[in-house]
Amino acid sequence: MQISARNSLKGTVKQVVPGAINTEIVIEIAPGVEVVSVITKSSAEGLALDIGKAVYAVVKSSDVMVAID
Amino acid sequence: MQISARNSLKGTVKQVVPGAINTEIVIEIAPGVEVVSVITKSSAEGLALDIGKAVYAVVKSSDVMVAID
Amino acid sequence: MQISARNSLKGTVKQVVPGAINTEIVIEIAPGVEVVSVITKSSAEGLALDIGKAVYAVVKSSDVMVAID
Amino acid sequence: MQISARNSLKGTVKQVVPGAINTEIVIEIAPGVEVVSVITKSSAEGLALDIGKAVYAVVKSSDVMVAID
Amino acid sequence: MQISARNSLKGTVKQVVPGAINTEIVIEIAPGVEVVSVITKSSAEGLALDIGKAVYAVVKSSDVMVAID
Amino acid sequence: MQISARNSLKGTVKQVVPGAINTEIVIEIAPGVEVVSVITKSSAEGLALDIGKAVYAVVKSSDVMVAID
Repeated sequence: MQISARNSLKGTVKQVVPGAINTEIVIEIAPGVEVVSVITKSSAEGLALDIGKAVYAVVKSSDVMVAID
Repeated sequence: MQISARNSLKGTVKQVVPGAINTEIVIEIAPGVEVVSVITKSSAEGLALDIGKAVYAVVKSSDVMVAID
Repeated sequence: MQISARNSLKGTVKQVVPGAINTEIVIEIAPGVEVVSVITKSSAEGLALDIGKAVYAVVKSSDVMVAID
Repeated sequence: MQISARNSLKGTVKQVVPGAINTEIVIEIAPGVEVVSVITKSSAEGLALDIGKAVYAVVKSSDVMVAID
Repeated sequence: MQISARNSLKGTVKQVVPGAINTEIVIEIAPGVEVVSVITKSSAEGLALDIGKAVYAVVKSSDVMVAID
Repeated sequence: MQISARNSLKGTVKQVVPGAINTEIVIEIAPGVEVVSVITKSSAEGLALDIGKAVYAVVKSSDVMVAID
């Protein structure tokens, strides 16, 4: 499957914290650079996400804001 | 200002494409790794976004999906 | 690629309206049932979206609201 | 109330899974075609969502991505 | 129609800026307090949004971030 | 930090409801007018959000819908 979302950052799962409905996934995309994702618990289980797994953090460009110091 | 959005990726503006309402911003967050953002034209102008400017790509964690190969 | 987004509705492209930055895509997912998507123009071009093409409308479940009459 | 969100898919609630903050709602929009929504628990309670109830899955078009095989 | 989105701020349309695909709507929700919305041009036309019209700015709670000074 | 999100509504925290992964924050932005936000529990803790604290409810304009009666 190829998706329209423009942002796809390669990384490795560092942490998986399951809740009742949602699961928080911490993905390391570069040494010391992490991206946090919240997806449904069933999605996380469906993808068998576990520490060390190679994944992509995917974001639609309309969900990306820009900030300056 | 400190914001709740968990993801804040440091980078440099590589491209600014203004439309009528929205502007597309390409941010390089690592050599060869780009993040694309679509924000309103007035936001882009308000932040004076231009090529070479140091910025952060900011994403709320509930907007981050996870994909596997 | 397998993605965490829980909703993936099979359909056919019925209309493609390109703007400067964004493109509007109308997808028919059942006779008379349409889903409208707004993605970046470059994404639409990258996927070669055109009338008649078989596609999926993909939505993260945290972006789905529920309404009642 | 009439809302700007372009996508409104008629369906029936098939499952309601409450968590501490969020509730997951599974909506059948056609035989065998389901849409999953995550909304706050209080919203789900406020709408008295229960199995069999007629509802709409509502999505803003900027939250719809497009994928191809 | 009653929707799950928790936030519905009453206001008045102050400005309508149409683009090719999207339209920017500025809504005054209190004297001097404005909310900006970007929706599709056809939605704006479908709701006949015009300066002075009474409207609600509607936001799903998972799209609201929190910031501190 | 200055962010591209166009909407920043000043208010006071009225309620904090923590879950396993997400925390619901109720912000009063005017007498009797509340905005509800769902952010990760760690974000809420990182910002030390508590009843009475002065905060901003921040929303990207592409996440704001418009409704009419």
